[in-house]
Amino acid sequence: MRLRKKPWVIDELMNYTNLVVARPEEQQGKWLEAFNNQNPIHAEFGTGRGRFLIALAEKNPDLNYIALEQKQEVLIQGIRRANQLGITNIKFILGNANRLSEFFAEGELSRIYLNFVDPWPKNRHAKRRLTHHRYLEVYRGILTTGGEIHLKTDNEILFEFSLNETLAHNFLLKNICLNLYRDEENRFLHEQTDYELMYIKEGRPIYRVEIIEQP
Amino acid sequence: MRLRKKPWVIDELMNYTNLVVARPEEQQGKWLEAFNNQNPIHAEFGTGRGRFLIALAEKNPDLNYIALEQKQEVLIQGIRRANQLGITNIKFILGNANRLSEFFAEGELSRIYLNFVDPWPKNRHAKRRLTHHRYLEVYRGILTTGGEIHLKTDNEILFEFSLNETLAHNFLLKNICLNLYRDEENRFLHEQTDYELMYIKEGRPIYRVEIIEQP
Repeated sequence: MRLRKKPWVIDELMNYTNLVVARPEEQQGKWLEAFNNQNPIHAEFGTGRGRFLIALAEKNPDLNYIALEQKQEVLIQGIRRANQLGITNIKFILGNANRLSEFFAEGELSRIYLNFVDPWPKNRHAKRRLTHHRYLEVYRGILTTGGEIHLKTDNEILFEFSLNETLAHNFLLKNICLNLYRDEENRFLHEQTDYELMYIKEGRPIYRVEIIEQP
Repeated sequence: MRLRKKPWVIDELMNYTNLVVARPEEQQGKWLEAFNNQNPIHAEFGTGRGRFLIALAEKNPDLNYIALEQKQEVLIQGIRRANQLGITNIKFILGNANRLSEFFAEGELSRIYLNFVDPWPKNRHAKRRLTHHRYLEVYRGILTTGGEIHLKTDNEILFEFSLNETLAHNFLLKNICLNLYRDEENRFLHEQTDYELMYIKEGRPIYRVEIIEQP
């Protein structure tokens, strides 16, 4: 969906001072202070309207969640929803994945979620994929030892690339799944994104893998 | 295709003394003597009519090939074809993969091909899949250090299982491919089996991976 820039959105965003971190680069190395606890931090890059991460935050009050999204018109919808629900263990960042190493310090995250990120299916755009090794090395830096990247996508090319790229760069893979909802029970064991619900309806297979950092 | 037992087939088989090894267990540790050279040995388990391995044997005179198949009515067709072509770097075994460790000594094979083997898609039959760890441990024994298993299948469940099973048992994976003929050029870079040609016609995706033994 194409969204028109709405100048008032940024003002609305910044009003949610409990949920939005306006200057994430100033929070680097100090995210636990923002959450005011010692719980592990899980982040989703490209969080969209936040359905997936908000559902996890509701389910797991003993974990902290960070939602990163670069489109303000999309992010605001997740923020409104988290505000309505009164969730306190989630923070929202308006920002781009290219700036991750400014936002997070070494070992600051326990888990990264990549859900239905842009597949950039043309070979010449492979460098833009969020599982390209230039991103993997950033993740390795900001993840705790043994931290995990959980990837879901409907895109065959991105998934194939991600498996080969992570294996070639010394990550461990677990629970590779070529069709997540082949087993219907997984509808209840996993949270879904907005895109994912649409793909399930269309009968498109969803790929999933857990990528484990090893030093 | 269902094939009726034809008692004369076994007699015909045994007439091809240059191509058929009648007592493979007696050849254990001595396969290079049968080929009368020092070239690496590549084997296919479940070779069917032998289209794939015969094509490789023709292309690569500096490699030795062993074709294992348990159905004599199928195997005989490959033998006849290899005989017609006058190929000398291939041997045929009528036998079952359960007896591999009787047929081959430690480190005797450089590469194993598993092409469109029975997927046994039900969970309770997983032990019968030729990439179940009870087979992987046999392969590890008969493969040379760093030897490779090249797997092709059209079956999503078998492929997913094989990726997870090999990774969990300390094999390395290379060139994971979720749709081998997405790139048309691969038609010419890879040899096809009879089943595979049929699946390509039907537009079914073919999965492929190279599984590397590491000590």
